[in-house]
Amino acid sequence: MALLRNVMITGCNRGIGLSLVKQFLNETPASVIATCRNPDGAQELQQLQQSNESRLHILQMDLRNFNEFSGKSNDVEKVTKGQGLNLLINNAGISTKFSRLQNTLKVEQLVENFVINTVAPIMLTKAMLPLLKIAATNNAGHPISIERAAVVNISSVLGSISQNKDGGFYPYRCSKAALNAATQSMSLDFMNDGILAVAIHPGWCKTDMGGKNAPLDVDTATSSILKTLRGLTSEQNGAFIQYDGQSIAY
Amino acid sequence: MALLRNVMITGCNRGIGLSLVKQFLNETPASVIATCRNPDGAQELQQLQQSNESRLHILQMDLRNFNEFSGKSNDVEKVTKGQGLNLLINNAGISTKFSRLQNTLKVEQLVENFVINTVAPIMLTKAMLPLLKIAATNNAGHPISIERAAVVNISSVLGSISQNKDGGFYPYRCSKAALNAATQSMSLDFMNDGILAVAIHPGWCKTDMGGKNAPLDVDTATSSILKTLRGLTSEQNGAFIQYDGQSIAY
Repeated sequence: MALLRNVMITGCNRGIGLSLVKQFLNETPASVIATCRNPDGAQELQQLQQSNESRLHILQMDLRNFNEFSGKSNDVEKVTKGQGLNLLINNAGISTKFSRLQNTLKVEQLVENFVINTVAPIMLTKAMLPLLKIAATNNAGHPISIERAAVVNISSVLGSISQNKDGGFYPYRCSKAALNAATQSMSLDFMNDGILAVAIHPGWCKTDMGGKNAPLDVDTATSSILKTLRGLTSEQNGAFIQYDGQSIAY
Repeated sequence: MALLRNVMITGCNRGIGLSLVKQFLNETPASVIATCRNPDGAQELQQLQQSNESRLHILQMDLRNFNEFSGKSNDVEKVTKGQGLNLLINNAGISTKFSRLQNTLKVEQLVENFVINTVAPIMLTKAMLPLLKIAATNNAGHPISIERAAVVNISSVLGSISQNKDGGFYPYRCSKAALNAATQSMSLDFMNDGILAVAIHPGWCKTDMGGKNAPLDVDTATSSILKTLRGLTSEQNGAFIQYDGQSIAY
């Protein structure tokens, strides 16, 4: 089995991103590159960094600043030192409040959700692709897996068109359906390079975004996600699954 | 059966939009409000207008100018004179050339395709919703149908995630998957108002966008679309179908 050496996760100041960082530090020997917009305000992440100096690298990134992506790729290259990047988890995302078409829906909400939830994962994946390819090549003898090289896009069941029974929520639903479409194209575009691509619904978690009524504790969800990620093979390439590995219809 | 009185179609200077205008003028007694960005350059549409003065109304609209939409709604109200709008066909769209992630994909392409192909249909539908509701109320005794009130979003099979076997094409695929997501929400948000919403793949047509190698003649496709639209009932509310009525998986 190839060794999962380097993982990059976006949006790690809180919620699912922060919890994923903890899981990887606890459950694998991998180095973690954790991005957040404002490291100074990410106290819990900073504390984690102090007790994991050699393994946790905090990278300041505003995912709307696309012209900085190639520079950030250089920063990641310095950390990964020729090993490449095994796993990119596009986790950072936003959601506007629920609204129906009749009500307060605004152009700015539709575009902002799309830019952060869809365009940023696509463009960051493009920027990190050379590093993902290096990891895939370094582990060329190993089967397709997150240990070799993979892109995991954190999507949402709200992006499932067939499971939409409540309507509304245009900015978020559109951005996540679009992210699922992008993930499918990634899975096909990267296949010959040995890089896996999947979209994962993390479950409805008790986070700032998910709210207090959510049924899932965030660490329970991310522990389940990690287990699911570890089990991914070429059969799941392009799949849309939830935290526990169950398939979701588009 | 309710009478299909007023139809609004976007992007009518050429291609599928222009052909749809012809079909409605030939096959139904409805008045047609045909939008295009530059009426002076839309010669064929102007010629049609001259021979259908009382039924064809050309409305100048740039679908990126969202702040003009409420004014355009007033223009449509003047044409429809209290009858409301029975059918809005969001046809206008753009497509960037095919590219894979590795190649020339740009942020601007992703955002531009999303703004024109997804945001514009959503916001135009929002602007026309009061007129669609008037038509639905005026025909309250009639079943759900395009004769009562409906929104038809011209989507594409390229927006089908499950049928994507070729990859690439991020800007167009993302925008059309997002449009399908929006259509599903519309179908749920409008149900109680008696307004139908569907997404239609028009077929791969010989147009400027579809190219010369396309298998379908555009007038054949739009004739088939009109027949399909006429057969829509509440059972197809929210459906993703192609020109001939066949269902497409998301």
